[in-house]
This record gives sequence, structure tokens and C-alpha cells, in this order.
Amino acid sequence: METQTASMAELQKAQHTETLHLAVQPFATDFQHRWSWPDLANALLNAAETHASKRGFGMFDAERNNYAWVLSRLVIDMESLPKAFEKVQVTTWVKGLFHFFTNRCFAIGAETGEIYGYGHSVWALIDTRTRQPLPIDQLPGEPLSKYLEPSLPCPTGDMGRVKPIADAALVRSIRMTYSDIDFNGHVNSVRYIAHILDLFPLSDYADGRNVRRVEVSYIAESHFGDTLSFFVRRLDSDNYEVEIRKNQDKEKQGTVVVRSKVCFGNT
Amino acid sequence: METQTASMAELQKAQHTETLHLAVQPFATDFQHRWSWPDLANALLNAAETHASKRGFGMFDAERNNYAWVLSRLVIDMESLPKAFEKVQVTTWVKGLFHFFTNRCFAIGAETGEIYGYGHSVWALIDTRTRQPLPIDQLPGEPLSKYLEPSLPCPTGDMGRVKPIADAALVRSIRMTYSDIDFNGHVNSVRYIAHILDLFPLSDYADGRNVRRVEVSYIAESHFGDTLSFFVRRLDSDNYEVEIRKNQDKEKQGTVVVRSKVCFGNT
Repeated sequence: METQTASMAELQKAQHTETLHLAVQPFATDFQHRWSWPDLANALLNAAETHASKRGFGMFDAERNNYAWVLSRLVIDMESLPKAFEKVQVTTWVKGLFHFFTNRCFAIGAETGEIYGYGHSVWALIDTRTRQPLPIDQLPGEPLSKYLEPSLPCPTGDMGRVKPIADAALVRSIRMTYSDIDFNGHVNSVRYIAHILDLFPLSDYADGRNVRRVEVSYIAESHFGDTLSFFVRRLDSDNYEVEIRKNQDKEKQGTVVVRSKVCFGNT
Repeated sequence: METQTASMAELQKAQHTETLHLAVQPFATDFQHRWSWPDLANALLNAAETHASKRGFGMFDAERNNYAWVLSRLVIDMESLPKAFEKVQVTTWVKGLFHFFTNRCFAIGAETGEIYGYGHSVWALIDTRTRQPLPIDQLPGEPLSKYLEPSLPCPTGDMGRVKPIADAALVRSIRMTYSDIDFNGHVNSVRYIAHILDLFPLSDYADGRNVRRVEVSYIAESHFGDTLSFFVRRLDSDNYEVEIRKNQDKEKQGTVVVRSKVCFGNT
């Protein structure tokens, strides 16, 4: 586990980091005036897209060249969350390449430099005509290896593997609708997180308590009209595993779409 | 119906308009890369909050002084919707006062000045200790009448009254969860719009087709855990009325929470 840290200014000095500056909008907060997790996760993806499109491998480059980036894993670990109107910066960089995968890091901080937390993501490349994975070195255009920043620290902690959940309880089933669908025609990565956070009672988000960490493994795609079933296993009073299966009925188990871990704590 | 118009620049020259500048974030778009309606509606409310907080009657002023603004009606009418990365400006102003109500307008345009559409909203003031309406002239601090811009045009068209729907079909029922709840502890005004748009099939949003206009009357509050039932009446192939009732069961009708009209068209 990486424990070294760097300041926001040090991260931003590196050539191939990109920083999104934003203010927490008052209608992007939860009932405690804190930046909402789905809006935070969207800001990370927006920063990633800005970084990628400036270097020729963003979503429009991808569409034009018949490939797509598929988010495989995402962890976001927040020490605290800014409140309405606070100015925030999200810095992102590509850390490494591993044949079929690339990993991208994020640091989330105040304009004053205080770091709120980190994110870590793993992405695969697919050919949209065949739906088959492509080795990262077959990315059209400049090689991604030009843009790596391997030495910048990204101390999110290890991402544990969420194993199949045997003794989990079915907590909710919902059908995927228009707002759930992204520009690839699939359920949007962030919407899974929003639906997962919506499984918990309001008391888990009150009295200084909030989600501290979310880990997500994206295993299969789901689409408009799919019914997702959410299974939850309580590890202890702060930690939960969640498995999402699609189109499950009494006879069959359904396909596992997402496995996730959610950690609550005082923030 | 108001038909006069003004350019974005003319609107912004007026003393008591406020303008929010933003770029459409790629992960705030729908599956056609168009700015999503819920994110657009949030941008309007964020512009309103920025305008209000700069003049001493924003949400934190309200909290401190035991009052709250309650959105009573909202219409958003869009000629077209910008796409990912496009720069947008939302200009807002208070148009008038009517004893217990005030109305606020919005113009949504490109940075180049092209106008995409307009919004119109009606707000009430309540005392949060008694939950009773307050006359607008009892607003603590500077009188709101100081900040009016009555002559600026806001051509959204008339907002028809959506009457009780007798012959509507129950299309969906969902329970309100964490993401639905705003800082007042109620279901967020924009989440109703998102849930309404989610009643329609993806084909209504494809092939150049999209929602052109949304009208919403907010009639009662709903809270965490409430089950909302959505009733839809088709007027013609482009126009629908939607009524949302809470906690309806077989014996009782439930309380009407929202009445709405949704208009589709080519954009």
C-alpha cells in the first residue's frame, strides 16, 4: 500500500497531470450540504475526459476510431467532503500500463491545497465493432506511454477483491431508465454508485457520518430496461459489500454486473 | 404570452441579473451527448442561488433566519440543448412580487450569445418554525423589491394549469432514497423532473427527438422513504401530463405531490 503523499501543487507541476477547477454547486450537495458522492464521481470522470481529450484519446477520438474506454475498477477514498460553494480542484494522471489495462489516479483538494481524498481507476480498451479487448499499445494515435506519470503518489489504499457474496440479502430491485444510460448506451458507471448509496438509511449520512470510501468492480454491462437487483452483506457497522445482478428471476441467479464495497465513518 | 426577446448581452447589462458560466461536462450528458435535463435544471437552481446569496437571501441566509424558499412552479422551454464541452451561460433575475409569491426568470445561452431557451419559476416564502407562508415583504434584510428587473422579457409561453388527471395510467412506483433528498430534508425539485423523464422509452430521446418543454407544479412535499406513484396521460404523440402521488395504496388515493406536463419534439 502506497503511503507517500505529494501536495496538490507538486502533482500539478508534473507535465502530464490535468486539473479541473470547480465550485461545489449548492444543488449538487446532499441533505447535509456536503458535495454529493455521485457529483464527486462525475467530476473525476470529467477530469479524466478533459485529460484524455487534450491528448487525443478522449471520448470523441474514441468514437471516431471505433474504440471505447471501459471502466473496470474505481476506488474513491475521501478524508472529508467539501460543502456548497467551496472551490475544489481535481487533478488526474495516468500512472501505468499493463497490456490490456491502464490505471488513472485522482487527487481531490481545496483551492487552498488541502487534500480531501484520492481516487484510483483501472480502464480497458475495447474495439467497438467486435466488443473485444484491445491491447493498450494498439491505441490509435500517440502511444499512451508518452503520457505516464508513474512516480506521483496515489495513496488510496489497496483495493480488496470483493468475492461473490453467498449470504447477502436482496435489498432492492430497480429497472434502468433514461437517466441511467450514458453515451455508450450502457448504464453509466456513476449511476451504479448512486444506486448503491441509495440502499442505506438516512441515519448513515447524518450526525457527521458519511461514506468514506467506495470500491467498485465493473464486471458486466447493463442496458435500458434491465432490472438490477442489489444484494448487501454487512461486514460490520461501517463496512458493507454490495453485489448487483441483472435480470434475476426465481429460476436463475442473473448475471453479476457490479461488486462493490462501501465504508462509512465520521468525516 | 410574452413574445418580445432580448439578447443575452442585453439581459446581462441589467443591474440585477446574475450569470453563471459553465461548460457542459461530458458526464452530465445523456446517451446522445446532449446536456441532460436534470443537470440543466440544477444549473438554473445554482444560478438562482448564486443570485440570491449575493443579495442576502440565499439558502444560508434563509437557514440562519428561519425561513425557506419553496419552489412552487417551474417551466423550462428549450429550443435546443448544447452538447458535451460547449460553454453555456445561465442568466437569472427576479421579475416580480405578488404578496406571497415571487417569480424568477432564466435565459440559457451559448457563450456566443445564441439563446437555447428560457425558464420561469414561482417561489413562496415560508417560516420554517411554523411551516406557514410568509408575505414576501416580510423577508428579513433588504426588501426584495430593490432587486426586481420587471421589464426583461422571459418568453417561456404560458404555463397551463395541469388539472387533476382522472384517466391516467399508473406507470411506475418508486421509493425515495438518499440521493433524492435535499438540504431541506425534502425530495429535491430536480429529482422529480429526473423521475418524470425516466417514465418514457429511449426512443422518445433518439433520432433528433428530445424533451422540448417541462412544466412542473409542486403541490406537496415528500420525504425519505415515501413511495411515489407516477400516473401518465397521453395528450398526443408529443405531449403528456404526469401526476405524482405519494404513499398511495389500494384503499386511498394518496396525496398529489406534483403535476407536470412534458412536451417532446425535434430539437
